[in-house]
Amino acid sequence: MKNRQWILTSKPMKLVTTDELELRTGEISEPGPGEVLLQLLFISLDPGQQVYMTSTQQNLPGGIVNVGDVVRAWAVGRVVASRSERFPVGSYARDLNGIAGVQEYATLHESTIVKVDPDQAPLPVHLSSLGMPGLTAYFGMLDIGRPREQETVVVSGASGAVGSVAGQVARIKGCRTVGIAGGATKCRYVVEELGFDACVDYRAPDFINALRQACPEGIDVYFDNVGGSVLDACLGHMSMRGRIAFCGAVADYGGSQPYAIRNYMAVLLKGLRWEGVNFYRYADQAPAAIAEMAGWIGAGQLRHREDIHAGLENFVTTFHKLFEGGNFGKLILQVHKDEDI
Amino acid sequence: MKNRQWILTSKPMKLVTTDELELRTGEISEPGPGEVLLQLLFISLDPGQQVYMTSTQQNLPGGIVNVGDVVRAWAVGRVVASRSERFPVGSYARDLNGIAGVQEYATLHESTIVKVDPDQAPLPVHLSSLGMPGLTAYFGMLDIGRPREQETVVVSGASGAVGSVAGQVARIKGCRTVGIAGGATKCRYVVEELGFDACVDYRAPDFINALRQACPEGIDVYFDNVGGSVLDACLGHMSMRGRIAFCGAVADYGGSQPYAIRNYMAVLLKGLRWEGVNFYRYADQAPAAIAEMAGWIGAGQLRHREDIHAGLENFVTTFHKLFEGGNFGKLILQVHKDEDI
Repeated sequence: MKNRQWILTSKPMKLVTTDELELRTGEISEPGPGEVLLQLLFISLDPGQQVYMTSTQQNLPGGIVNVGDVVRAWAVGRVVASRSERFPVGSYARDLNGIAGVQEYATLHESTIVKVDPDQAPLPVHLSSLGMPGLTAYFGMLDIGRPREQETVVVSGASGAVGSVAGQVARIKGCRTVGIAGGATKCRYVVEELGFDACVDYRAPDFINALRQACPEGIDVYFDNVGGSVLDACLGHMSMRGRIAFCGAVADYGGSQPYAIRNYMAVLLKGLRWEGVNFYRYADQAPAAIAEMAGWIGAGQLRHREDIHAGLENFVTTFHKLFEGGNFGKLILQVHKDEDI
Repeated sequence: MKNRQWILTSKPMKLVTTDELELRTGEISEPGPGEVLLQLLFISLDPGQQVYMTSTQQNLPGGIVNVGDVVRAWAVGRVVASRSERFPVGSYARDLNGIAGVQEYATLHESTIVKVDPDQAPLPVHLSSLGMPGLTAYFGMLDIGRPREQETVVVSGASGAVGSVAGQVARIKGCRTVGIAGGATKCRYVVEELGFDACVDYRAPDFINALRQACPEGIDVYFDNVGGSVLDACLGHMSMRGRIAFCGAVADYGGSQPYAIRNYMAVLLKGLRWEGVNFYRYADQAPAAIAEMAGWIGAGQLRHREDIHAGLENFVTTFHKLFEGGNFGKLILQVHKDEDI
């Protein structure tokens, strides 16, 4: 048995390509005491992977991808060999820390994985609403955004894996929820399927006016997934004592020249709180959050959408969809086309 | 009895001058029930006054200065007429909310003023360390910065009214304290008189390197009084989960084209919290803070320095000293040259 794996061959300066990545065949290491061998079935593709590959800052939360490493990724798999009583062969699990990797097999210790119940939701949903993106949205919205009933909550990347959950959590908490998304199709989905009160197209020429009209009393909570000029526009329209949960900056991940923020004085003049969302901070509280969100999914209150592409060999072209604005729903790589789950 | 007052005649677009201000003679209104007539003795000059004069945003905390208004200011005065039992004629008081104004007399309700004890500290100190600047520093550092023992705390404008207190509070709490100030004289004062561990000159050509050398393990708390490029440099050198108490942006108050922040991604990548400091949020807790700081002053732990200029007629030229980088210590206008306090 061989293990196909995507290896970083050099640090990218901009959006990673096959110039810096190579699909190699490696060995499979037999599980040691307390370890399991997972056959990966679905691999999560997330904008943060670009940061792990680009960054040279070794103390980044969760760790970076160094040259020679398998590309980091969250994944769901089936246990095919086990020296852990908690994870028998044939059961399903996902990793807790995004270390499973873009590969066919991963040998992981039982302390770094969590059981996945396919009856609770289909396997890919455990990488979207019930996985890292959903948990990031849940904790970022509730712990940093702290939305109060009737407040206006704006979410960028509103049709995406994180944004769709962030906005729906705010809606469930009784807020007026305004999405920001790219194009009419996504905006319609955000309002009609996800139940946001409004959605503004950031590509439209009158974006800033449309945003102001959708938020006549200002923005109390801004949950940001995109950074750059959209963040700047929202900063300029925050309410007094507003909160910004800064969760992603997909607009600035690929570029070597980052955007510069003009409206930063609003933090001072309006007494804002602007805080980075870090999934790892909340790891202990994840099981309770998963249970609550699974309940919302069951009750039809929390909608989800996955965008699944098959074939490990298609990792790079599929990953690029995150930055082209073309993907719609949580982007997931299915390792084998013919896998029947 | 007449009342000389500085009146805003038009909204300034940049640093206010006599083009937008006029010294006029107005009436004195007799105190009504619960009110006192204060003869103002010392008037606080603060960078925030520029914001109040420039801004057209009516819901700014504390209110803005509209055309025709007396310029807002904090002041200490002597009660010369009273219909309040709590404030007899001959006692001293200062206003709580910066509404006394740049004028000779102010009629204020007893609910908007607080007693001043000249035996606790000289009258001008009640506008510096024991006034709004000191309280802003105290609450901004402790409530937003939340410094822990041994952490590295950086304070810009370290020799100023707010910064000097912010840094000394951090020092008293057991932190390694690094100041940022303009020029060798101020830097020496910050280390030798205020007891900071180090001070970096932001005007020096190697400022960013010097800052990094002074903070080899990164910045855990940054207390910012200046904004602009100094803030950007500190953002680029924050530690994981660092806190930024954003208290002032004197570098950006005068200009019509604000600085744009390049290192904003650090908020995301390092999980920072960046929050605006708003004095008014803590008004209820001010008496306890004043008592604690008066104790530190008495024990020689909290040093202060005032820069007092005489003559109400000199308001504009004196106010400009705040933006020229030339003033040293809390800038205060003494209303009458010959006043003997």
